[in-house]
Amino acid sequence: MTQLEASRFSKQFSLVTPIALAPMALASGGALAAACARAGALGLVGGGYGDLDWTQREYRLALQAAASQRIGIGFITWKLDEDASALDWVLDLPAEERPRAVMLSFGDARRYAARIAASGAPLICQIQRLEQAKQALEAGAQVLVAQGAEAGGHGMNGLDGRSTLTLVPELADWLASKAPETLLLAAGGIADGRGLAAALTLGADGALLGTRFWATQESLAPLGAKQAALTAGGDGTARSAVFDILRRKHWPTPYDFRALRNDLHRSWEGRVDALRAAPEAARASYDAGVQAGDYSRAHATVGEAIGLVHDLPEAGALVKRLHAQAQAALGG
Amino acid sequence: MTQLEASRFSKQFSLVTPIALAPMALASGGALAAACARAGALGLVGGGYGDLDWTQREYRLALQAAASQRIGIGFITWKLDEDASALDWVLDLPAEERPRAVMLSFGDARRYAARIAASGAPLICQIQRLEQAKQALEAGAQVLVAQGAEAGGHGMNGLDGRSTLTLVPELADWLASKAPETLLLAAGGIADGRGLAAALTLGADGALLGTRFWATQESLAPLGAKQAALTAGGDGTARSAVFDILRRKHWPTPYDFRALRNDLHRSWEGRVDALRAAPEAARASYDAGVQAGDYSRAHATVGEAIGLVHDLPEAGALVKRLHAQAQAALGG
Repeated sequence: MTQLEASRFSKQFSLVTPIALAPMALASGGALAAACARAGALGLVGGGYGDLDWTQREYRLALQAAASQRIGIGFITWKLDEDASALDWVLDLPAEERPRAVMLSFGDARRYAARIAASGAPLICQIQRLEQAKQALEAGAQVLVAQGAEAGGHGMNGLDGRSTLTLVPELADWLASKAPETLLLAAGGIADGRGLAAALTLGADGALLGTRFWATQESLAPLGAKQAALTAGGDGTARSAVFDILRRKHWPTPYDFRALRNDLHRSWEGRVDALRAAPEAARASYDAGVQAGDYSRAHATVGEAIGLVHDLPEAGALVKRLHAQAQAALGG
Repeated sequence: MTQLEASRFSKQFSLVTPIALAPMALASGGALAAACARAGALGLVGGGYGDLDWTQREYRLALQAAASQRIGIGFITWKLDEDASALDWVLDLPAEERPRAVMLSFGDARRYAARIAASGAPLICQIQRLEQAKQALEAGAQVLVAQGAEAGGHGMNGLDGRSTLTLVPELADWLASKAPETLLLAAGGIADGRGLAAALTLGADGALLGTRFWATQESLAPLGAKQAALTAGGDGTARSAVFDILRRKHWPTPYDFRALRNDLHRSWEGRVDALRAAPEAARASYDAGVQAGDYSRAHATVGEAIGLVHDLPEAGALVKRLHAQAQAALGG
C-alpha cells in the first residue's frame, strides 16, 4: 500500500487517492463530482450560494452518475444563515442518497452541527486561519481543510490571509496535540501531483483541489473562461473585493475573491472604496462582458495554481494523472 | 547518498544539506552565517542596506569563524543603486576571501552582473514573480530564489504577491525548459524539515530560510523581539508598508514588509495613506518602542513560519535538526 492509499483520508472515505474536488459554486456540478468519485476521489458538489433548484438538479445528477459512492456537497456557511433549504433538502434524503460528506466554508458552522450530525454525514470545515480551528472542532468537524490565500475564488484577504505552506504544518501540529483523530486537507495552490505530495509531506492527510478541476471538460465554468485561464500564468491572478462588488455579492469581511486579474479588475483594484460607493458603470461593463464572453471584463475564477494548468482534460483521467504524479514525487 | 546530499545545490556549493541562510539585514551577522556554514549550510551575511562598516565587520567575522568556506553575502539591489561600496569592497577582497555566492534581491541585478562575474562569485537572484525570472537570468544568475509572500521582512504585496507553493513548481517547470542548469531555491514559509522536504518535492534544489534562523542564539535580532515572536503563531503576522514608513525606509513599489502584527501596526494598517502623509506622531511612538524594547510598537521581523518556531537554538544544531527532519519527511 502506498502513502497515498494509506492516508487516513483515503481510508475513512473509501478513496483510491486522497483528493477531494472543491465544491466550487456553479463549476462543481453533478458531472464533475461524479467523474471525480468514479475515479476514486471525493466528489463534492458545489452547493455554493444555496440555490435549491440548482443543488437538487446537480446533486441528483451526481448520484445517478456515480451510484452515490464518494459524493458529497459543500455550502457557503454565511449564505445558509439566509436560506438553508438546500442543506435541509440534502440532509432529508433517504439514507442511501445522503451525502458522504458535507463541507461548510466561510462562517460559523456550529449552528448546523446538530442537523448534519443527525444525518450521519461527516462534516468537513474549511478554515483560513489557525484561530478558526477551535470553532470548527466545536461544530463537530471530522475533517479540517486548511485553505491558503493562493486559492482561487473566495478566501481570506491580505492582512488576515495565511498561505497553505505555513498553515498546513502548523495546523497539523495543533491537531496532533488537540484532536489527533481529526483529518486535515490542504487547499489552495495545489494543481499537480507535486503539490499533492508536498501536502502529505507537510502533514496533511490529503488535498482539496479547485482550480485544477475547474479546468476540466466536466466543469460547468464557461468554456471561454477556461480558455482565457489556460493562457494565464500564476502571476496573472489577484485577490480583492472587485468581482464581488461587480457581481453584487455581499460577502462579509474578511473574505475576498481571487480570479484572473483582467483589464476591468486592474482598472478598479486601486479604488475599491470608490467602486463600492458607485458601482453602476463598472457593473454595466462587467455585465456586458459576461454577456459577450469577454474575459477582459468578466471574471474567470482561478487561483495561483493556474500557472500549473495547461490543458482541459476529463476529470477522471486527471485524478489518475494526479495520483501517478504524486506517487512519483513521493518516490513510490 | 540521500536526496538532500544529492541535490544540485548541495553539490555545487559543497554543502552537507541544501539550506541557505537568508541574508537578513541586521540579523544575519557574521556569527550566524559562520554557524550555518560550519554545520554544512550556505551562510549568507546580510549586507542589507549596504552599510560599509557593518558589512566589513560582520563579513570578516564570518570568514574568521568559518574559514571562508560556504560564506557568502546578500544585498538589497535597489539600495546598491545608491551606494555599492560594500559590494565593491567584498568583491575586491583577495580571491580566497571573496564570497562563495553573492545574492541580490529587490531590483534589477543586471547592472551588477559584470563585476560579480569578474569576481568569480556565483550570483543568486531572489525573485517574487515568474515574470522576473528572465531578467535574473540576463544578470547571469546561477541560482534563483523563489520567494513567496508568506516570507518575513521584505517581499511583494498582496495584489502582486505569489505564494511559495505555486511559484516554486511553476518556476521549476519554466527553468527546466529555458535554463535547466540554473538552480532553484524555495523561500518563504519554510521553518522545519517538512518544509524543506516539501520544497524538494515541489521541484526546488534547496531552500533559503529566514525566520527560522532569525530565532537562533547567534541572530543579531534583539532578544526582546525574539521572545515576542516565540509567543506568536503564524496568524500573528501581516504584510504592509506600515513599518517601512515608521522606519523611514523608502522602499519602491511593489515591495512591502511582513512582521509581527503588533498594536502599532494594527492601529495604522487600515490607514496607510494617512500614515504616509503625516507619520510624525506614529514615528515617535515607534521610536519610543524601539528604545524601550516594547514590541507592541517596535517591529519583530518574522514571516508566517513563526508558527512553526518554538525555541531559540544554536544555529549549528538547528541545521542538523532541519536536515534530520527533512530526511525523515522524505522517507530517508
